[in-house]
Amino acid sequence: MLVVKVGGGEGIGFDALCQDVAALVKSGQKLVLVHGGSHETNVISTALGKPPRFVTSISGYQSRYTDRETLEIFAMVTAGKINKLLVEKLQQVGVNAVGLSGADGRLVQAARKSVLKIVEDGKRKVLRGDWSGTPEAVNTDLLNLLLEQGYTPVIAPVALSAESEMVNVDADRMAAVVAMAMKAEALLLLSNVPGLLANFPDESSLVTNLPRHRLAQGLEYAQGRMKKKIMGAQEALEGGVGKVIIADARVESPISGAMAGKGTVIQ
Amino acid sequence: MLVVKVGGGEGIGFDALCQDVAALVKSGQKLVLVHGGSHETNVISTALGKPPRFVTSISGYQSRYTDRETLEIFAMVTAGKINKLLVEKLQQVGVNAVGLSGADGRLVQAARKSVLKIVEDGKRKVLRGDWSGTPEAVNTDLLNLLLEQGYTPVIAPVALSAESEMVNVDADRMAAVVAMAMKAEALLLLSNVPGLLANFPDESSLVTNLPRHRLAQGLEYAQGRMKKKIMGAQEALEGGVGKVIIADARVESPISGAMAGKGTVIQ
Repeated sequence: MLVVKVGGGEGIGFDALCQDVAALVKSGQKLVLVHGGSHETNVISTALGKPPRFVTSISGYQSRYTDRETLEIFAMVTAGKINKLLVEKLQQVGVNAVGLSGADGRLVQAARKSVLKIVEDGKRKVLRGDWSGTPEAVNTDLLNLLLEQGYTPVIAPVALSAESEMVNVDADRMAAVVAMAMKAEALLLLSNVPGLLANFPDESSLVTNLPRHRLAQGLEYAQGRMKKKIMGAQEALEGGVGKVIIADARVESPISGAMAGKGTVIQ
Repeated sequence: MLVVKVGGGEGIGFDALCQDVAALVKSGQKLVLVHGGSHETNVISTALGKPPRFVTSISGYQSRYTDRETLEIFAMVTAGKINKLLVEKLQQVGVNAVGLSGADGRLVQAARKSVLKIVEDGKRKVLRGDWSGTPEAVNTDLLNLLLEQGYTPVIAPVALSAESEMVNVDADRMAAVVAMAMKAEALLLLSNVPGLLANFPDESSLVTNLPRHRLAQGLEYAQGRMKKKIMGAQEALEGGVGKVIIADARVESPISGAMAGKGTVIQ
């Protein structure tokens, strides 16, 4: 079982990824694909007159402030556009993909954080009415039901809170909880960087191996979104996933390449 | 087995519908929900600077001209917004809804009509590059797999062509082919009208019963989108569906009410 997360950042084409998924699925590999959609959400929400607002938490992580209107745009773009374009491309190369969000069949349940504690202009502030959450539990029955019948699940980063509200979740961390719940041999986090860089953005400073006892050091190297990937990796390894590979989505055979050791292998 | 199609027109709230679905599902009724989304697609596509273009076929039916950009907006809005808002509302009233488009798992297959023959300004024209289709086949295995495990499928009106291209399909006709394939006892077409009106828009002229041998007369009464509902009804009855009820979605208990005879019952 592989869980592959592919980012929605600029410069990522899905053709090579889908070809690689097709080759793996044909060879009998069970695989769950999780995707992002932040970049496209920014484009569409800006076009709709609702530009994104990013905030920095008091612990230093950047995230999207998700009011209800933003949540609905986020769900629309990730579950309706990115997800369905991936399903279409996968179907075209012979993969019987089924696109879902984490809200469908309560596939991914999350703890809603309706209040964000942020730092803005050097001051601590409290921001209410947020519709994002931390993914916590996975309906593995539904995933197994689909996988056993030959379907390949493709999951958009929307989850359901305990009160059955849709919430925006970080796709890397969603992929991590899915990998843990499915006892995956590997979790692959593919995006528009070659892996963890010791000296960002110098791509020649790629960290090819990061033993789990040195994850704290990895977190120091990590810039921006890479911090969430390292946190996701830590969570996944602690939860029993065999290894986590952070690798480039912009290359030929991104999944097979990562499994062969390209990127940052954390185990 | 009931197949219920609810329109995406103005004035339709989904609360009463979802409450009614919950009561039926709790009583053991198996149900598949199909929804539209034309109105919301018009709103969003106009906001995105891509106003909808409606054309009239040479046989007199109005439809949306769906170029590739329009298709992607249509999929985004129907499969990502309307579908997920319905899933969220259903989850909130205890229905374990799973939202899908017809592209997922090749749930609904359609014949793509890439060329439209239309009448514009009194002249016949040929319009190429259309991404719409006529729904033809249903993956009943996938629907039964979900229904048997207690999930309630909610389907957005996007289907997959033989070449695995996504296409926009009419939701009434999609509901009709789903009802036929699932051998439904009834197909309910709920929208913002009380049923077929002999004298549109006079709601007191509601046709309460339309025997199948008088469908041709019903087609004469029908205005605008009602024509497609009558065509869908005819197709469904010929395909073995027990009865078709065209009824109002804007009332309390719209499904139970329709099953009790409110609306236009065609059998």
